[in-house]
Amino acid sequence: MQAYNELQEKAKLIRKWSLISTTEAGSGHPSSCLSAADITAVLFDKYFTYDIARPLKINNDRFVLSKGHAAPLLYTLFGMAGAYPLEELKTLRKFGSRFEGHPVPRYVYAEAATGSLGQGLSVGAGLALLAKRENLPFKSYVLLGDGESAEGQVWEAANFASFHKLDNLIAILDANRFAQSGETMFGHQIENYVTRFHAFGFETIAIDGHNLEEIDKAFQQAVNNNNGKPFAIIARTLKGKGVSLMEDKGGWHGKALKKEELKKALEELGTTNDALRFQFKKPASGAEASPKAPLAADTSIDISFDPKKEYATREVFGETLTKLGQHNQEIYALDADVKNSTFTDNFLKAIPERFVECYIAEQNMVSVAAGLSRLGKTPFVATFAAFLTRAADQIRMARVSEANIKFVGSHVGVSIGEDGPSQMGLEDIALFGTLPGTAVLQPSDAVSTAKLVPQMAAWPGMAYMRTLRPKTPVLYDDAQDFFIGGSQVLRQSDDDTLTIAATGITVFEALKAADELEKEGIHVRVVDIYSINPIDKSTLIKCLHETKQPTLITVEDHFYHGGMGDFADEAIEELNLRVHKMAVTGISESGTMEQLLNKAGIDASNIVGKVKQLAGAYAGQPASMHA
Amino acid sequence: MQAYNELQEKAKLIRKWSLISTTEAGSGHPSSCLSAADITAVLFDKYFTYDIARPLKINNDRFVLSKGHAAPLLYTLFGMAGAYPLEELKTLRKFGSRFEGHPVPRYVYAEAATGSLGQGLSVGAGLALLAKRENLPFKSYVLLGDGESAEGQVWEAANFASFHKLDNLIAILDANRFAQSGETMFGHQIENYVTRFHAFGFETIAIDGHNLEEIDKAFQQAVNNNNGKPFAIIARTLKGKGVSLMEDKGGWHGKALKKEELKKALEELGTTNDALRFQFKKPASGAEASPKAPLAADTSIDISFDPKKEYATREVFGETLTKLGQHNQEIYALDADVKNSTFTDNFLKAIPERFVECYIAEQNMVSVAAGLSRLGKTPFVATFAAFLTRAADQIRMARVSEANIKFVGSHVGVSIGEDGPSQMGLEDIALFGTLPGTAVLQPSDAVSTAKLVPQMAAWPGMAYMRTLRPKTPVLYDDAQDFFIGGSQVLRQSDDDTLTIAATGITVFEALKAADELEKEGIHVRVVDIYSINPIDKSTLIKCLHETKQPTLITVEDHFYHGGMGDFADEAIEELNLRVHKMAVTGISESGTMEQLLNKAGIDASNIVGKVKQLAGAYAGQPASMHA
Repeated sequence: MQAYNELQEKAKLIRKWSLISTTEAGSGHPSSCLSAADITAVLFDKYFTYDIARPLKINNDRFVLSKGHAAPLLYTLFGMAGAYPLEELKTLRKFGSRFEGHPVPRYVYAEAATGSLGQGLSVGAGLALLAKRENLPFKSYVLLGDGESAEGQVWEAANFASFHKLDNLIAILDANRFAQSGETMFGHQIENYVTRFHAFGFETIAIDGHNLEEIDKAFQQAVNNNNGKPFAIIARTLKGKGVSLMEDKGGWHGKALKKEELKKALEELGTTNDALRFQFKKPASGAEASPKAPLAADTSIDISFDPKKEYATREVFGETLTKLGQHNQEIYALDADVKNSTFTDNFLKAIPERFVECYIAEQNMVSVAAGLSRLGKTPFVATFAAFLTRAADQIRMARVSEANIKFVGSHVGVSIGEDGPSQMGLEDIALFGTLPGTAVLQPSDAVSTAKLVPQMAAWPGMAYMRTLRPKTPVLYDDAQDFFIGGSQVLRQSDDDTLTIAATGITVFEALKAADELEKEGIHVRVVDIYSINPIDKSTLIKCLHETKQPTLITVEDHFYHGGMGDFADEAIEELNLRVHKMAVTGISESGTMEQLLNKAGIDASNIVGKVKQLAGAYAGQPASMHA
Repeated sequence: MQAYNELQEKAKLIRKWSLISTTEAGSGHPSSCLSAADITAVLFDKYFTYDIARPLKINNDRFVLSKGHAAPLLYTLFGMAGAYPLEELKTLRKFGSRFEGHPVPRYVYAEAATGSLGQGLSVGAGLALLAKRENLPFKSYVLLGDGESAEGQVWEAANFASFHKLDNLIAILDANRFAQSGETMFGHQIENYVTRFHAFGFETIAIDGHNLEEIDKAFQQAVNNNNGKPFAIIARTLKGKGVSLMEDKGGWHGKALKKEELKKALEELGTTNDALRFQFKKPASGAEASPKAPLAADTSIDISFDPKKEYATREVFGETLTKLGQHNQEIYALDADVKNSTFTDNFLKAIPERFVECYIAEQNMVSVAAGLSRLGKTPFVATFAAFLTRAADQIRMARVSEANIKFVGSHVGVSIGEDGPSQMGLEDIALFGTLPGTAVLQPSDAVSTAKLVPQMAAWPGMAYMRTLRPKTPVLYDDAQDFFIGGSQVLRQSDDDTLTIAATGITVFEALKAADELEKEGIHVRVVDIYSINPIDKSTLIKCLHETKQPTLITVEDHFYHGGMGDFADEAIEELNLRVHKMAVTGISESGTMEQLLNKAGIDASNIVGKVKQLAGAYAGQPASMHA
């Protein structure tokens, strides 16, 4: 059709630059760009509403490239929208370039880092949910590959989108038949995608993804859709479309053309009008999001705990988050059907408009939070610590995305008792601790919890808090200060033999051990490591200087490798000393907290034993005799 | 109906013991047991074929309790089948009891540890696939909760089951409307489950889960189904069915009845015939699986590498696994559409009958492997190391299940280059290293890779191998031995100042650094830590004794926290020394391997700098001056 001639020329230009940039890089995924060139040409030319000078304008449409390996397509699209000269694409995949192999945040037009497949629909759903909740006019478009639709997270996102009636979400499935190592599960039987998305509550349409008129009509229908259902365009496409060498052929995933192949391919494409550009419709004027600006630490929250009572830190977390949310409109709370255990149900009651029920689908929950974070929100994601491992890849990618998500994992360690090992969070410090710049906290009592939640909200970037199932005594005065990177010395004398650094439930075991040892005339220093990363290096070093022996014992309800002990060990590097770690070394079981702490070797009696061993204090002999 | 009177009585007995055991324990999930009591009574009474004396008989039917919190139901069912006296259920959730809060392997009738939701259908699919591949007659039954069907893994498993035509798989969805913290996404609108399973390729039937006749007919249809489609029974049930206090009421998830409530509940159930038992049909005679017996280390594999050539360890892994598989019928290979990158495509070509394509769905892949392991297979699960994080929770649960799975993660570290951070495995040592008893290996050349793959297969329990994207030179002679817990000293002299322990790609950087330092008259010892956990403690200690300084530098292409350095640090504890770690501290980017290793601070030049700093060797001054 005549009307689509210019569009066809634009699609040709997209193809040209997807090919040139990857050949220049010597690697990349041109065939995966070519299959979606026609679809995205129509979207960007006729439908996309965006202020190219202000990517974070909250009224802009959003485009999430879930199939992140098609990054050169994304880079070409925004280049053709005038964001930068297309010539800059020749730096693709080169050290220092913003055009990385897969999109990352320094490319400001990417809504999230992608490249681990199957996460984009959740990010797009997070953005669409935000538009619904905050009455923003934008559409959220997500381009998915067919291969990645095998990832369960896609169906978590689909359920989420239809349940939350996100009819401003438009999924486009680029069904080009080939995945990396062969045909996809369904090849070109695209009805398999149609029936699945339909069953999951989407409006669906199947089209030929290279027929510009069909594409155009599909988008028309999609943007006018307002029946409460999200929309899915299932596009039958050809991988490598437009270049006969690779078109609809296996073995072309992730392969750039050689220089001579490129020459032929460009000849085959024919003359291009290199001046063609997209002219985006401008969105209504509106604010710009500031996702990188952390919240101010809110110190105005009233704290008042009865020192004679016991509190579960998970409960105090829920109550504090609710107060914090009432003070600050940017805070959202996300749940995966454990809100009565993490106590975010308080938040739901008080602030339903910023509470997001994600049901039992942790992966989608984390990526939805990444979407909220993109537009300046501070999402708190809370579930059992054990079940945050379900979203380890999404958490990893959220970190690559520089998402400002706060994670809270309850029911940590063997101290949960009777439920047994499947419910015990024993890998969580390792999980969050490996991710650069991620704060890891574990308050042991009500006061420290209430004081640290606002600190966490204010931390620039990702932060994680472990909370406890059982109730614990109040250790601190309401007026006490707590901060990320701090600690509290709970026992100290001029006569301390050595130092015990504990965190969470083991703080109480360490205190009991100190009492026990005191009776035998052995004084120990006890430090509450409520901030695991960063850890309070100066206090630890001070303790080592001030005690009779430069001996530091760490004790924690976490697996041995990757826990707090390793952070403490790092902290004392400059003294050329090392810690003595006590942690969980085997799979636990059902039992009472006391039985399991004892069997894991981290209760008061175990600590007493370790201190005596290290202090050489058996039978009252001085430490030096047994050093 | 008259015919169902006895069945009704048996269901009543199931209810009775689900209630008694949880009240006795003071915690647990009786309401979740009661909703499924009628369904399972019919299944166990009329359909289940099983030799109760031999749970691992390979012809037995399999029952996977995906909703693991209904453990008392499982325990009651096998008790009523004569496995043990029902009275023993009064030890539920008590320390030392095999009846833990959620099923674990010491309860031998559990097919896998469950309790992290949404994993059971994959385990059941793994078992069903095995039956298809090895011509076994059994059916694989999986009882799912409705809440857990929000987990994406359920839909990964559904796709897998229909793609692989597992018509011996029968999923039973217990749609009791309530999840933990409130109603499920769909409540009693069970058509939502029917349409979803149907769209994913299942035969489906919707029934009243408390109508014994309807249940019976559904199972009849299911067991006779042989049209290539897996079967799903969607049962509308009432949570807490049979006890008016909790029946179909919210707020009863995970709550045991109090003693006085139990009394009333039992009165309401009425008289029971406590002698009623299930009489399973015996399966055809056949072998018993030995999942705990590790394979013998196969040393018969021919190894021959050209010392002048370079090889990618990932490629050598794929070739060696294929040879190993040809020698050993128990080995399976599982892929998530990266077989041309991990080189398991060799295995597919040679042994298609034991290759399992899982497409891009890593979670399902791992739990399928857990199913294969249950019946004595040794599954190798290979994908990019970065994407093993996608299945962190399934890996965690596989460890709780004591599954004998071997994991291989390719494309580790920043050394992958241009693809950027989303594809870099930098958390994998932490992920596997935290799990007790899990071997972690990283060979750096062809010979060590080929020698370690059989060792890994023979390791009792889970093992993980990191493999490299780039090709590396051959370091070792074909005759050299390698073993789990070993290392290789690559450079040593009588005049070594200190020791560098490297692993994988950094071995080559350490060797380059040693050459550089040699020119300046500084001799260093270089150790290849090909076994990260367990690590070669005696060699490290020996090095510290033999070098001029007791200084150990570790260098690795992994994030700083939780990597090899921490294992090395642990190893030298008895010397009261500590390592000096070099590892990746920030998010990487696209670039050449050389650029990224340099920027990450782990290339030869960085190592040279670190050695000089620690050796105090600037300007030729002796080390002691700068200690």
